[in-house]
Amino acid sequence: MASTAGQIIRCKAAVAWEAGKPLVIEEVEVAPPQAMEVRLKILFTSLCHTDVYFWEAKGQTPVFPRIFGHEAGGIVESVGEGVTDLKPGDHVLPVFTGECKECPHCKSEESNMCDLLRINTDRGVMLNDGKSRFSIKGQPIYHFVGTSTFSEYTVVHIGCVAKINPAAPLDKVCVLSCGISTGLGATLNVAKPKKGSSVAIFGLGAVGLAAAEGARIAGASRIIGVDLNANRFNEAKKFGVTEFVNPKDHDKPVQEVCKRINHVLEERVIAEMTDGGVDRSVECTGSISAMISAFECVHDGWGVAVLVGVPSKDDAFKTHPMNLLNERTLKGTFFGNYKPRSDLPSVVEKYMNKELEIEKFITHEVPFSEINKAFDYMLSGASIRCIIRMDA
Amino acid sequence: MASTAGQIIRCKAAVAWEAGKPLVIEEVEVAPPQAMEVRLKILFTSLCHTDVYFWEAKGQTPVFPRIFGHEAGGIVESVGEGVTDLKPGDHVLPVFTGECKECPHCKSEESNMCDLLRINTDRGVMLNDGKSRFSIKGQPIYHFVGTSTFSEYTVVHIGCVAKINPAAPLDKVCVLSCGISTGLGATLNVAKPKKGSSVAIFGLGAVGLAAAEGARIAGASRIIGVDLNANRFNEAKKFGVTEFVNPKDHDKPVQEVCKRINHVLEERVIAEMTDGGVDRSVECTGSISAMISAFECVHDGWGVAVLVGVPSKDDAFKTHPMNLLNERTLKGTFFGNYKPRSDLPSVVEKYMNKELEIEKFITHEVPFSEINKAFDYMLSGASIRCIIRMDA
Repeated sequence: MASTAGQIIRCKAAVAWEAGKPLVIEEVEVAPPQAMEVRLKILFTSLCHTDVYFWEAKGQTPVFPRIFGHEAGGIVESVGEGVTDLKPGDHVLPVFTGECKECPHCKSEESNMCDLLRINTDRGVMLNDGKSRFSIKGQPIYHFVGTSTFSEYTVVHIGCVAKINPAAPLDKVCVLSCGISTGLGATLNVAKPKKGSSVAIFGLGAVGLAAAEGARIAGASRIIGVDLNANRFNEAKKFGVTEFVNPKDHDKPVQEVCKRINHVLEERVIAEMTDGGVDRSVECTGSISAMISAFECVHDGWGVAVLVGVPSKDDAFKTHPMNLLNERTLKGTFFGNYKPRSDLPSVVEKYMNKELEIEKFITHEVPFSEINKAFDYMLSGASIRCIIRMDA
Repeated sequence: MASTAGQIIRCKAAVAWEAGKPLVIEEVEVAPPQAMEVRLKILFTSLCHTDVYFWEAKGQTPVFPRIFGHEAGGIVESVGEGVTDLKPGDHVLPVFTGECKECPHCKSEESNMCDLLRINTDRGVMLNDGKSRFSIKGQPIYHFVGTSTFSEYTVVHIGCVAKINPAAPLDKVCVLSCGISTGLGATLNVAKPKKGSSVAIFGLGAVGLAAAEGARIAGASRIIGVDLNANRFNEAKKFGVTEFVNPKDHDKPVQEVCKRINHVLEERVIAEMTDGGVDRSVECTGSISAMISAFECVHDGWGVAVLVGVPSKDDAFKTHPMNLLNERTLKGTFFGNYKPRSDLPSVVEKYMNKELEIEKFITHEVPFSEINKAFDYMLSGASIRCIIRMDA
């Protein structure tokens, strides 16, 4: 591998020339990594809703041409100046947000919102020199969230690279770069349900199913899935979901339904008890009404609601303050509170020791040449995760 | 003492005959305790805002004639049927909310919101038989929050009685029955600031000062007091408050001021750092705008805001959900999350070992015969706590 170090690499990449138009496989030039950067050979990548959202670019300042992709597994090809933590041949997951290990957030035990490398969806260039490492005949092609994994080779800041167990199959663990870890961590790191507790999951897409998987791993006895699409329940059972609530089936708001469910569960007998609720809830839709329901459906005294879904910019979270004073907790999380470099290796180990089941999230696989099919699967709701094999 | 057991006791009590009218010292008859009740001889009581609020009874269903009072220290005079945890002579603090030790809340490590004995401000009678233990010439006089400590003797459910160290001076520790523990626990049990951290306290009344005292005990390096009354700052310094913010002095909302303060403090150098905030905040006013400021002024990534103040019933807490998704936590607390019977004895010990300073909260003292002066001191803002000596 060392033969390409320091050289420009010519390879295939799927380029988004315009918002919403099919990607085009092109030959791109990938410059060598600069200081604190590494160049990765991507072996597997998968498609996440966030790629689709910024590819559609509705209501956004468009950043095109661009190479999308941020869930992937690869191998370090070469390293830039000053890089000591990584070496060619290391197996890694690139991550859309980083960990500089120097800022107050990285130094805090509680935060993963690195000041230097926090996700920036508008920036299409590398931090080091404000330029792109990708070009086609001299024309720069923009990066996406510092990863751009829809390319056989990509350049990433070392703060956005998690070095993992080389025995881990990259065609599976690549999905841990974003959505699955986001949902899993929301439950395991933030909601922290106790064994035997009840957990409501709002939204049964990939992130919500990963949140349910977290509840299953934590030993929750009841996992209540809430979704407007009844077709998702059968799939959700594989992820530990034990009951399904479709808000469309009820006259009352979901929080009332959840409280009723909990009453039956806990067979409470004290006559004064007039309110119930689940022990934990995790909101994975981004709908403001789901966020409010997710909060108001947790039990007073100890209930914790965790918001994961990204809201619209004009949304307002609104509740009566007594819902808080009655000892409910409301929290939000970003990337499941995982610090990419410090924590992702242990998530991979959870898969290796069979605690975490990844295979059930992978519903489709396509060769790189058919990457646009992955978009079709996601837009039609057919896939949870579609793996894109770079060598095919 | 046993000579009065099982007998009606005639003693003095301060009766509120009508909303907002001065209390009248009357001779009342106090019936013996029934099953799971104890009769207490009250030695010291103090006045809390909650007494005044329900005495004024504005916009409430009036419950009169009534004996107010819920912060007190006393001695068990006699016990009712089935009482084994308490015996005559025990030193105790009666508490306005209880701990039955049987319900899901009492069994939860996280909650103190007992299903059976949770505060009920509308009920003027005992749970056991739905009747009052107080009467004057056959006319029942109603209880207040199960304590009614403005009486030389009172009857309380055992779930609302904390047995404490008999060496503790009741004229001091009586204030731990309500406000001081509420503020102290909000910081120590819920906000949990780390040593060296920054804490903002909204509202510098007794509860807010107790929250500041908690921050001082926890070793916070900066305690920022926020109040509309600049006169409170000097007093607040005794409670560890290091800086004062008066929202009236600033064009910007308080959360912006707090963020600026924090920036100076932490001398942050990372250029990308654009937002700051305090590590913890505790809201002790009940004003909805203060609640929102208290939440929005905590740092992203790790900030925790705790709501203590009781809002108006039509208030709505409103914030952009991104403030949550950026890893801020919003919690509320009731009585500082202390379980009355299990936890109050240890708060008394904090005073006994000189960790907690109670004396500075006690600004006034009056004999029982002048109890109405305590109302005047509170209504004029002169007092933090006024002790009422029952034997004088």
